[in-house]
Amino acid sequence: MLLYDSPVSGNCYKVRLLLAHLGLPYERQTVDVIDRSNRRELLGKLNPGLRVPTLVLDDGCSLGESGAILWYLGEGSRFVPEDRYLRAQVLQWMFFEQYDLEPAIAVVRFWVAYSGRPELFEPERPAKLKAGERVLRTLDEHLGGRNYVVGDALTLADIALYGYTHVAEEGGFALDPYPAVRAWLRRVASEPGHVPIDA
Amino acid sequence: MLLYDSPVSGNCYKVRLLLAHLGLPYERQTVDVIDRSNRRELLGKLNPGLRVPTLVLDDGCSLGESGAILWYLGEGSRFVPEDRYLRAQVLQWMFFEQYDLEPAIAVVRFWVAYSGRPELFEPERPAKLKAGERVLRTLDEHLGGRNYVVGDALTLADIALYGYTHVAEEGGFALDPYPAVRAWLRRVASEPGHVPIDA
Repeated sequence: MLLYDSPVSGNCYKVRLLLAHLGLPYERQTVDVIDRSNRRELLGKLNPGLRVPTLVLDDGCSLGESGAILWYLGEGSRFVPEDRYLRAQVLQWMFFEQYDLEPAIAVVRFWVAYSGRPELFEPERPAKLKAGERVLRTLDEHLGGRNYVVGDALTLADIALYGYTHVAEEGGFALDPYPAVRAWLRRVASEPGHVPIDA
Repeated sequence: MLLYDSPVSGNCYKVRLLLAHLGLPYERQTVDVIDRSNRRELLGKLNPGLRVPTLVLDDGCSLGESGAILWYLGEGSRFVPEDRYLRAQVLQWMFFEQYDLEPAIAVVRFWVAYSGRPELFEPERPAKLKAGERVLRTLDEHLGGRNYVVGDALTLADIALYGYTHVAEEGGFALDPYPAVRAWLRRVASEPGHVPIDA
């Protein structure tokens, strides 16, 4: 398998983290996340969203969207519950991550730490910070008294939410007010098979 | 089952459309999409996103996120392909819908047609319109020469994308430049079991 990848993208890291847990071999091709001028040429036939991660399977078929890639790789493994309701809850948190968490926390992190032009985004930053804090509060409330996001073991929901939450501080988000989130981050990072974002 | 619902929300309509196709009975409770002051009280224990649709199952368990609800209801039916790769493609388009289409097309439609205060959003509208047009172009390119979004029959991907695409004109999006999208909209609407958004 070939993963069109960015070493700094949390969306790509989710896929690499699952691949590590599953022990699956793959190749990586780094795609520029600042200069996007070659995206259509590079990914146009592979992923309608023209984004990384994009996974090309051994038969040449391709998949886009981190959530769909995680599902493709994770189905049938211990990271997708057998129970139908728990499986839907995993997807609920994966959709929540893409709709609420990523557009706030990943976007601010990119602006501040990776865009090279943080000043361009200054007017929009306060609203996004507030949205990200709301997401962290929601996650902290949910994780209070729980070890994992869904059920009692690591699932795709943890992997998806971990991707950007564990680097939220790079965007200027303080994690001190969220003790359940911090404990969960440590728990996910201590799972056998875990790899860091820069592995 | 009880569906916390809004008659004008495309996200809720997706769920109602699938429920109609599946012939499943349910009750509806309308939630205000303008005055959101009672959201925490109403949905706090049911859906971390505090949004509609929220589905409460007969055993009292609840689910949020339209994509997760569609998956819960659709798994094992003809709307979720048996092939693993096609199933992942369905999810790819469902995540694309929530990450790219909904935040542009649904949001502009809400501002223009349902917020009651369209002037408040005027500064942000041109960028969102452009993003929505990009999404419609992507969808039109994909649908050229295809009858359905994934495979050769209606799936959750069609239902998810139809929800807001078929009312995009309410937000000021012109569908004339997208003939494949228009043909697909007619095809989805002519499926046996189809119900309109105001049913």
